[in-house]
Amino acid sequence: LQVEGQGAEIGLDPVVVAVDMRIQPPDLVDLRSDATRLKAALSDRGYPQAHLGLPVLADLSERLRAQNWQATLALRGSEVVSVLPVGSSLFGLAVDVGTTKLAAYLVDLASGETASKTGAMNPQIAYGEDVVSRIAYANEHVDGRVLLQRRLVDTLNEMLADLRDQAKVGRDQVVEAVVVGNTVMHHLFAGLPVQPLGAAPYVPAVSEPLEFLAGQVGLELAPGAYVYLPPNIAGYVGADHVAMLLATEAAQVFTRQLGRTVVALDIGTNTEISLFHQGRVYSCSCASGPAFEGAHIRDGMRAAPGAIERVRIAGEQVQIYTIEGAPPVGICGSGILDTIAELLSAGLLDGRGVLNGDHPRLRRNDARPIFVLASAETTGHGREVLVARSDVNEIQLAKGAIRTGVEILLAEAGIRDEDIQDFIVAGAFGTYLDLGSAIQIGMFPDIPRQRYQQVGNAAGSGARQMLVSASQRLLAAEIVRQVNYVELTTHPAFTGEYVKALSFKPL
Amino acid sequence: LQVEGQGAEIGLDPVVVAVDMRIQPPDLVDLRSDATRLKAALSDRGYPQAHLGLPVLADLSERLRAQNWQATLALRGSEVVSVLPVGSSLFGLAVDVGTTKLAAYLVDLASGETASKTGAMNPQIAYGEDVVSRIAYANEHVDGRVLLQRRLVDTLNEMLADLRDQAKVGRDQVVEAVVVGNTVMHHLFAGLPVQPLGAAPYVPAVSEPLEFLAGQVGLELAPGAYVYLPPNIAGYVGADHVAMLLATEAAQVFTRQLGRTVVALDIGTNTEISLFHQGRVYSCSCASGPAFEGAHIRDGMRAAPGAIERVRIAGEQVQIYTIEGAPPVGICGSGILDTIAELLSAGLLDGRGVLNGDHPRLRRNDARPIFVLASAETTGHGREVLVARSDVNEIQLAKGAIRTGVEILLAEAGIRDEDIQDFIVAGAFGTYLDLGSAIQIGMFPDIPRQRYQQVGNAAGSGARQMLVSASQRLLAAEIVRQVNYVELTTHPAFTGEYVKALSFKPL
Repeated sequence: LQVEGQGAEIGLDPVVVAVDMRIQPPDLVDLRSDATRLKAALSDRGYPQAHLGLPVLADLSERLRAQNWQATLALRGSEVVSVLPVGSSLFGLAVDVGTTKLAAYLVDLASGETASKTGAMNPQIAYGEDVVSRIAYANEHVDGRVLLQRRLVDTLNEMLADLRDQAKVGRDQVVEAVVVGNTVMHHLFAGLPVQPLGAAPYVPAVSEPLEFLAGQVGLELAPGAYVYLPPNIAGYVGADHVAMLLATEAAQVFTRQLGRTVVALDIGTNTEISLFHQGRVYSCSCASGPAFEGAHIRDGMRAAPGAIERVRIAGEQVQIYTIEGAPPVGICGSGILDTIAELLSAGLLDGRGVLNGDHPRLRRNDARPIFVLASAETTGHGREVLVARSDVNEIQLAKGAIRTGVEILLAEAGIRDEDIQDFIVAGAFGTYLDLGSAIQIGMFPDIPRQRYQQVGNAAGSGARQMLVSASQRLLAAEIVRQVNYVELTTHPAFTGEYVKALSFKPL
Repeated sequence: LQVEGQGAEIGLDPVVVAVDMRIQPPDLVDLRSDATRLKAALSDRGYPQAHLGLPVLADLSERLRAQNWQATLALRGSEVVSVLPVGSSLFGLAVDVGTTKLAAYLVDLASGETASKTGAMNPQIAYGEDVVSRIAYANEHVDGRVLLQRRLVDTLNEMLADLRDQAKVGRDQVVEAVVVGNTVMHHLFAGLPVQPLGAAPYVPAVSEPLEFLAGQVGLELAPGAYVYLPPNIAGYVGADHVAMLLATEAAQVFTRQLGRTVVALDIGTNTEISLFHQGRVYSCSCASGPAFEGAHIRDGMRAAPGAIERVRIAGEQVQIYTIEGAPPVGICGSGILDTIAELLSAGLLDGRGVLNGDHPRLRRNDARPIFVLASAETTGHGREVLVARSDVNEIQLAKGAIRTGVEILLAEAGIRDEDIQDFIVAGAFGTYLDLGSAIQIGMFPDIPRQRYQQVGNAAGSGARQMLVSASQRLLAAEIVRQVNYVELTTHPAFTGEYVKALSFKPL
C-alpha cells in the first residue's frame, strides 16, 4: 500500500481476517446451541474463546442452515463480526470526512488493494460552511448534533452503496471501517459533544482511539462490524492529520527513529502542522481561514471548471489558466496564490499588501486599487474577474497564520527554516498550489524546492493503511502519545511572529 | 437477599459499583480530552485502564461541566456505565419474562433491597398464547420477530418507568439489568432467531450467558448500562429455570456439594424439571400444556376473581372457594386439580379418567358425564360451572407429562421416588396448588408432605440475586455447564412411563 509520492510500503496485517469453517450440524443427540457449536469449531481451528455479539447472533442460525453449515467467518481478534458464504472476500471502508468533502474507499483486506472509491460533498454544509458554524448549529438546535450526525451517516451509507455496487460487494462483506476527520468532524460522526470544542481551551471529549459497532452510529456495514477512529491530538489537530502523518515520510522518520527533520502540514480552514525533529514531535493548528477555498475572496470560488488556477504576469501580459480550460468565472486558491506571488515579482504589490504601480490591468475603483485577471468579454458570466485589496489582505492573514505555525514549531525545537529536510504538503489545495508562489509570498520557508513534497489526500491513504494494518493503528496511537502539542493562541511568541509573517517581505 | 421459604442468604457482590470522583478541570495548560482526564482520575483512585463506551462519552462533557467536575461513576469492572451527580445510589432492573406475565423489580445495588416491583401481561399474547404460536408468528411474518421484540421492550420500558416513579430513581441510576425467561422469551427479547426452537431438535441460537448494551435492544437504562441474560440449558429449559434453581435450596446443594437429593420444577405450558443427586444435575422439559392455566378446559379460566380455586367434596356436599370470594364464573388450575383429586377420593372417577357413580352433582348430558361445581343460580354469569370428561382428560395429559419427567430423571440417576429429600415447586400455579391433591392425582410422587416446598416466583428472585452478586452469575453458568440434559421426546423409556403416568392409579 503506497501513497502518491511516498516510498514506504506497509505490510498487510489486517485487523479482520477470513477463516473458512465447517460446523457440525445439530441432531437428536448433539443439542448444543448454534453459537456453542460454532465456538467449538473455531476452537478446533485454533481460535479458542471466540465471542459473538448480538448483531451476529441475530442471523447466525439462518445463515448456518442456508449455507449448509459451512461459512467464511470474518474474525476480529476473537470476535466473529460476519458469517459469510464460503470463499467470500472481506473488505473494509476507509473514509476521510472533510468539513467540505467526503472521500470513501473500499479496500480488499486480503490484498490491500482499493476496490472502488467515491467522493461527495459533506451534507452538513447546509448547516454551516465551517467547523465553527457546525458547532454553533449543534449547540443552538435541539437535537442539532443528532441531525448533523444523521445527515453525515446517511450520505456515507449512500457512498458505501455506490462503492459496493462498483466492486460488486455485499453489505456483509464490509467488515471494518476506519474513519478520519478533524476533531469536530470526528466528534459529530461519533455523536460526541462539540460544545467544548467551540470555546477555550478547546478540549475534545475524546482524544484516544475509539472503536464501536458500526450499528451504534447507523453505518450499514456487516452486522458485527466495527468502526475504528484513530486518536486526535487536540481540539484542532484531528485524526485526519494523524492519518496524513501515517501515510507520509513523517511516519517513517518516527518509526525508524531517523534523525531527519520533517515538517508536514495539511492546509484548510484550519491548518494542522507537525514537526518531527530528533525523535520529538511538535504539533499545532492555525486558523488559516477559508480564503484558499475561495471564501471571503471577492471573485473566489472552489476549484471547479472555470476557476482560474494558474496566473503568470510577464510585463503587460497576464496569462491565466482555468480548470478544464473553461471560460473564467472566478478564481480558486492556487490562482489567487499565484496572482499575489506574480504581483509581488512584478513590483505591483508591496510588503504591506498595497497594490501600487503602473500596469494596464491595475485600476482604481473609487480609489480602491484592483487587478483585473479577466475582462468581461472573456469570462463565462460576462463580468470581470479581479483581485481587490481586500482579497490580498485575506491571503495575508491566511499565509501569515500558516507561516507563524511553522516558525513557532521550529522555535520550540530550537531550529530554523534551513534545518527542515523534508517539507510535506498534504491535501487537495496543498497538492495543486504552486510551491514557487507559496515561497514567494512567504507562506512557506525559502528552502530548496526539492525538499518539498506534495502528497495529495494522504489522510485517505492513512485511513486505508489503518484498515489493512493493525501495526499502523498502533503507530498512530504512538505518534499521538509522543506529540508535544503547542497551543498557538496562548503562545508568548505568537503575536510577534504573526506580525512578522503577515508581511510579504522575506522574514 | 432471601427468597420466600428458603434459608440461604447470599453475599452482596454487585457487578456495578459506585465510585465518587473529583476530576481536574481543563485549563489553558492542561488540554487533555475529557475522557483522558476522567481515566487519569480513575487511575489515581486505583481503577487503571478504564474504558468508556460511545453512549457514555456522548454526554460525558456536559455532565462533568454541569456537575462542576465531580461525579459518582457507575463502574462495571473497568467500564464506566453511568456518570451521575455525587452521592447518587445505583439500581438494577430484574425482569422475569413469562410467556403470559411479566414481573419486574428495581433493586438497590448497594443494599440488595427491592426498591419497587410491578407486573404486567406480556403484550406478545396478542400474537399467540403460547411459545409455539409466538414462534409461528415470528416465522410467518416479515419482521415478526422484530415486532415481538419491540412490543415486549416497550412494555418493559413502561414498567421500568413505573418502577422508577415508585422509587424516585432517575434513568441514569439504573445501571444494569438481568432478564430471565424461557428460551423462546429469552430469544425474542434479545432479537435472536426462534425458528430452530420450533422444530426438532429444538436447538437454541445461544445457550451461553449473554450480555450487551441495553440500547442494543432499546431498553431505557443508563446510556452505558448492560443487560445480562443467564445461560439457557436447552430449547425448552430456559434461563428462568436456571434463575429459579439459583434462588432455591437446589443451588445450596450444588454449591456446597451436599449429598441431598433435590427435585425442583416450575409448572407451565412447559414444565422444566431438574434433579440434583450426588453432585450431578439432570434436567428435562415436558409438554404439560396449558390446562393448569385454564386453557383447553371447558369452564377453565386464569386465576382471577370468581375463579374456583379450591374444591372439597364431602358426601353429597360440594364446597367451592373462589378467588376474592366472588360469585363463581369458572375454574382455575388449582380448582380443577382439587376437583379431580376429590372425585377420585369419592370414588366418582376411576383410574382411566372415567366419571362414574352416583352423586347428585354427577349428570349425563347426551351420555357424556359431567360434574356440576356450581349451579346456574349461584354463578356470576347465570350458567353452570362444571367439569366434563374432556377436562379430566386434559389434566391427565398434563399431570402425566410432569410425572413422566420426574420419573425419567430419577431413572437416569438410578433412584426412586422415596429417595427425593426435597421437592421444590416454583411458579404461580405451583405455589397455589394443593399438594395433597397433586399427590392424590399422581402428578407428584407420594412422599412425605414436609419434603415439599412451594417457593413462589423464584425465577424473579434468582434474577434479583444475579443483579447484586457476580458470584451468583458464575454459579448459574456452572450449574448449566454441569447439567445432563435429558431429551424426553426421544428417550427410550418415555412412552412406557407416560402411559403409566396417565393413569390416576398410584404408580
